[in-house]
Amino acid sequence: MKIAVLGTGMVGRSLAGKFEELGHDVVMGTRDPDASRERILAWHEAHERITLRTFAVAAAGSELIVLAVSGTSSLDVLELVGAETLDSKIVMDVTNPLDVSQGMPPSLTISNTDSLGEQLQRAFPDARIVKTLNTVTASLMVDPERLGDGEHTVFVSGNDTKACDEVEEILREWFGWRHVLRLGDITTARGAEMYLPLWLRMWTALETPMFNVHVVTALEQK
Amino acid sequence: MKIAVLGTGMVGRSLAGKFEELGHDVVMGTRDPDASRERILAWHEAHERITLRTFAVAAAGSELIVLAVSGTSSLDVLELVGAETLDSKIVMDVTNPLDVSQGMPPSLTISNTDSLGEQLQRAFPDARIVKTLNTVTASLMVDPERLGDGEHTVFVSGNDTKACDEVEEILREWFGWRHVLRLGDITTARGAEMYLPLWLRMWTALETPMFNVHVVTALEQK
Repeated sequence: MKIAVLGTGMVGRSLAGKFEELGHDVVMGTRDPDASRERILAWHEAHERITLRTFAVAAAGSELIVLAVSGTSSLDVLELVGAETLDSKIVMDVTNPLDVSQGMPPSLTISNTDSLGEQLQRAFPDARIVKTLNTVTASLMVDPERLGDGEHTVFVSGNDTKACDEVEEILREWFGWRHVLRLGDITTARGAEMYLPLWLRMWTALETPMFNVHVVTALEQK
Repeated sequence: MKIAVLGTGMVGRSLAGKFEELGHDVVMGTRDPDASRERILAWHEAHERITLRTFAVAAAGSELIVLAVSGTSSLDVLELVGAETLDSKIVMDVTNPLDVSQGMPPSLTISNTDSLGEQLQRAFPDARIVKTLNTVTASLMVDPERLGDGEHTVFVSGNDTKACDEVEEILREWFGWRHVLRLGDITTARGAEMYLPLWLRMWTALETPMFNVHVVTALEQK
């Protein structure tokens, strides 16, 4: 499958690297491909089948778009991609709307009565926004088995049920997630995004980002 | 121990009933004791050693205060109790600042760059506010073993380390919690409170409030 991973940070590299390993045709989107190529030179040399393009070019040539930029850039980046390219495409939104301007730990730039997931869906009504994976550290996104025998949970939120089904299949079949909790429509991204302040403080308390939550129910493990 | 449980809803009744069962001297605080006595008549008859008093009287006579009112009432209720009574007392804050005025599911009345826990601590600097248990349904607060063999996590936030130690002991030794994650000072209540939008949507998705999260780490289960 032709996959565009927008973003060349830790999250983008983890996802792009995994997709490539699985044999997919991966293009990474970035604001300035030449500058990014320099910045991630060593990694890129180890993943030479991945090409670096602008956000718009990467997305236009792809069937699946994975949004892995900083949350504060997400809207701008999708605007660079454009509504026409986004029409009918699944966008896996892995971003967190973190506000680092007020010191650490970050707060959120949007929350409570709205979410970044919803904001993106409103801006691009024909895109199929699916919020997922924003609740775990980058390396864990693509290799959940490395923690606690995979007994922990990832969330999925989106308006388009079929898009959510396809993302769930990616999570389970491609990445190895055992526990996928479908929260509901894109408004449920509020829950997934507002989990971040807790995640950040757990990171501090546990002194590692290598953790996740397992949703435990009476009937079965989720 | 003399314990004041402020609030006569499901949460207050669960906590008061458990403390009574353990042999403590429990007074429930409420705005209008006569009206509350009517409203919870059957329950009160089954827990006749528990007395109902006003918030101020209940708290004044107690060594430990448990705040189990609606989050939007929390500040008012502690104001009725008064700074003098609250001085040096541990206040287990189990409340959630839920805003039900905009429809369901509720949003939060305070979040992101502040929290109810912090608001209460600022208002009563000599009280020892400890945020805990707000992340699980009432019956689970006092009987965590009933879910998944107790393999799930409760959080504790507070400025006063010794107060947090004492609350942790209550959670572990009195209620049976196996996994208590100390998040840090009272600002970490932001995390615990902002977990609620996720909790609410998990409730809808799972069709039950009988669930919790288990924080899974590489080194050990938390």
